[in-house]
Amino acid sequence: MKTTTGTQIRFGVIGIGNMGSAHAQSLIGQRIEGAVLTAVCDVRQERLDWAKQHLPADVRRYADPKELMRSGEIDAVLIATPHYDHPTLAIEAFQYGLHVLIEKPAGVYTKAVRQMNEAAAAAAKSGLVFGIMYNQRTNPLYRKLRDLVQSGELGEIRRTNWIITNWYRSQSYYDSGGWRATWQGEGGGVLLNQDPHQLDLWQWTTGMMPKRVRAFCSFGKKRNIEVEDDVTAYVEYENGATGLFVTTVGEAPGTNRFELVGDNGKIVIEDDKLTFWRLRTPEPEFNATYTGGFGEPECWKCDVPVERGSGEQHEGILSNFTRAVLHGEPLIAPGEEGIHGLTLSNAMHLSSWTDGWVELPIDEDAYLAQLNERIEQSTFVKKTGTDATLNVSGTH
Amino acid sequence: MKTTTGTQIRFGVIGIGNMGSAHAQSLIGQRIEGAVLTAVCDVRQERLDWAKQHLPADVRRYADPKELMRSGEIDAVLIATPHYDHPTLAIEAFQYGLHVLIEKPAGVYTKAVRQMNEAAAAAAKSGLVFGIMYNQRTNPLYRKLRDLVQSGELGEIRRTNWIITNWYRSQSYYDSGGWRATWQGEGGGVLLNQDPHQLDLWQWTTGMMPKRVRAFCSFGKKRNIEVEDDVTAYVEYENGATGLFVTTVGEAPGTNRFELVGDNGKIVIEDDKLTFWRLRTPEPEFNATYTGGFGEPECWKCDVPVERGSGEQHEGILSNFTRAVLHGEPLIAPGEEGIHGLTLSNAMHLSSWTDGWVELPIDEDAYLAQLNERIEQSTFVKKTGTDATLNVSGTH
Repeated sequence: MKTTTGTQIRFGVIGIGNMGSAHAQSLIGQRIEGAVLTAVCDVRQERLDWAKQHLPADVRRYADPKELMRSGEIDAVLIATPHYDHPTLAIEAFQYGLHVLIEKPAGVYTKAVRQMNEAAAAAAKSGLVFGIMYNQRTNPLYRKLRDLVQSGELGEIRRTNWIITNWYRSQSYYDSGGWRATWQGEGGGVLLNQDPHQLDLWQWTTGMMPKRVRAFCSFGKKRNIEVEDDVTAYVEYENGATGLFVTTVGEAPGTNRFELVGDNGKIVIEDDKLTFWRLRTPEPEFNATYTGGFGEPECWKCDVPVERGSGEQHEGILSNFTRAVLHGEPLIAPGEEGIHGLTLSNAMHLSSWTDGWVELPIDEDAYLAQLNERIEQSTFVKKTGTDATLNVSGTH
Repeated sequence: MKTTTGTQIRFGVIGIGNMGSAHAQSLIGQRIEGAVLTAVCDVRQERLDWAKQHLPADVRRYADPKELMRSGEIDAVLIATPHYDHPTLAIEAFQYGLHVLIEKPAGVYTKAVRQMNEAAAAAAKSGLVFGIMYNQRTNPLYRKLRDLVQSGELGEIRRTNWIITNWYRSQSYYDSGGWRATWQGEGGGVLLNQDPHQLDLWQWTTGMMPKRVRAFCSFGKKRNIEVEDDVTAYVEYENGATGLFVTTVGEAPGTNRFELVGDNGKIVIEDDKLTFWRLRTPEPEFNATYTGGFGEPECWKCDVPVERGSGEQHEGILSNFTRAVLHGEPLIAPGEEGIHGLTLSNAMHLSSWTDGWVELPIDEDAYLAQLNERIEQSTFVKKTGTDATLNVSGTH
């Protein structure tokens, strides 16, 4: 637990745009026991001016991340920059002996994220902690779902189906930031910016990654952007299960419905409610022994208790990360696990670009080559060049 | 309106297995005004024995459809044989100057069904009526859905999504009939036997056929059968809309949820309930004029009145068909429209077999060649050779 000052972790937040400034405010609010904000960093002068106005005077401000990292004033960095920089900055931070908590997504392409994970593995030997801001893992609904799957209550998974179309974003949202929804700026659209939580929860709750992916992304179909704004992805798992992931920024009102079918029944999370239809006899057993022609297993609609509310969210992850550094508490969201969701979104892009199947793990070089081609060939000119910082309360 | 006896249509039912015997009983129940059952036909002696026991003595019994057709005792045939025979028998019946009502699906492959439609078009010139037993078109839920789409209330369709997995069938169901779930006997599985209604309603309610299909059928994955028992199909429409159709016989409890998204909002039919979320401003208009970054169109959850119950179902179609013959009433389900749903299921098979896109209209010869190959190569041996007639009350 090197560089800690004993009972307090000194945080530096890199990137104080939408999310970073919210995290900085959490840290100065003294709601994260054992955590203190000692510095922030942003390449944009107007954000540093914001920090000067809104953060305590003793919070140091840096324009250069390296300068922050070698300042000796922090024990941990919280990286909330645009996605591309997460792996680069994380690797640097480990080199400076810092604990690292990154915003989602882990990065834009898996090659960089794998390198970050390797750096994290090496850093772990010196006791450095690596986390990712998967705040939805604190949501009681998904924790309960994971519990019901992991404990075997649902039985072996047979089908997954997530319709997550309630990420409505108007054109004015895209026009608000120069880096938004470009290959160079974000490296993707709805999959990279809006869906990382669902792409994480999809495999975290089920404990299953697909073995192959066939996806259908539309690029700039619903908005004047160059990246994907509408996605249907079909996946197959090793055990024969199938899955679907449907997402878009262009529908109102959207749907957020996650259906999971197992040998013992079905679970649906929709409208902030989890419903478990449990079979009295597991389906394969019923099928093997039933002789009546028509007929199906007896089914009970079960009222499963789920803690109210949306959980501790960002502050829960910050607290857990802090306790992991101070007391060795297991991480809710280890940074290394960020590669799983990103692998899914990279595979969905690649499948659409090649109009074919993508086997997992994906060919990281092939993906990067395709991505770079799109960055190079981009002729996209934003209507506005401003980088407005939007109020994101309740949106992430 | 040749061959009618004036105010009554004399029906002959060909194939008195599961569905045909139910129709025969409707016809003798005097619930179909203007219709009378005068004859039945089945190649199986035990079914004719059943007819002798259960139908009035003056209902003639035939083992040979041709003999029935030329008997002069009927004005119309209701064809409820295994699927393959629908087009052949319908074409013959037209030649004998008979009105024709066929059970779903229209047939097994579109080439034969197109030929049947051509025969029907010629027969129409002599006033012969051609209908198909799409009884779900009488269901008030789907009638209302169609109304909301056709009248423009939902706006232009952007996404369709039907999860129809509540067609649970155990192995014992498949073992009950030698023709069931074989390429030779049925020419398909869940798509041909269980889903024809949904494949019809999917395009009948929306008024849209896809322009191309990419489907993922699993054959004999969940049951010991050679045909598809699990399907995920992705489709794209001419206007840029996308769609999904997910079905299986192997899940309990199943889901039946049809979601339709348009420019003016969203409609979901689930649990025998239709819900319409209507936007105050159509989405494209909102998007074009909104300047607030985050934010979305105001949405009203509307309580749309839908007639209770499931409609007149099979007897409604029989009555409508009878009135069409007697009085020229427009058909709820013209026989010619049976090709649409079948085109979708043929396309899903073909896409899976070729592991690629299938453009619509499909190449009917290519499909038939692939189907015949599977029939020829079939090594499937049924455990039982019996052809049990199951009680289908409430299942179709």
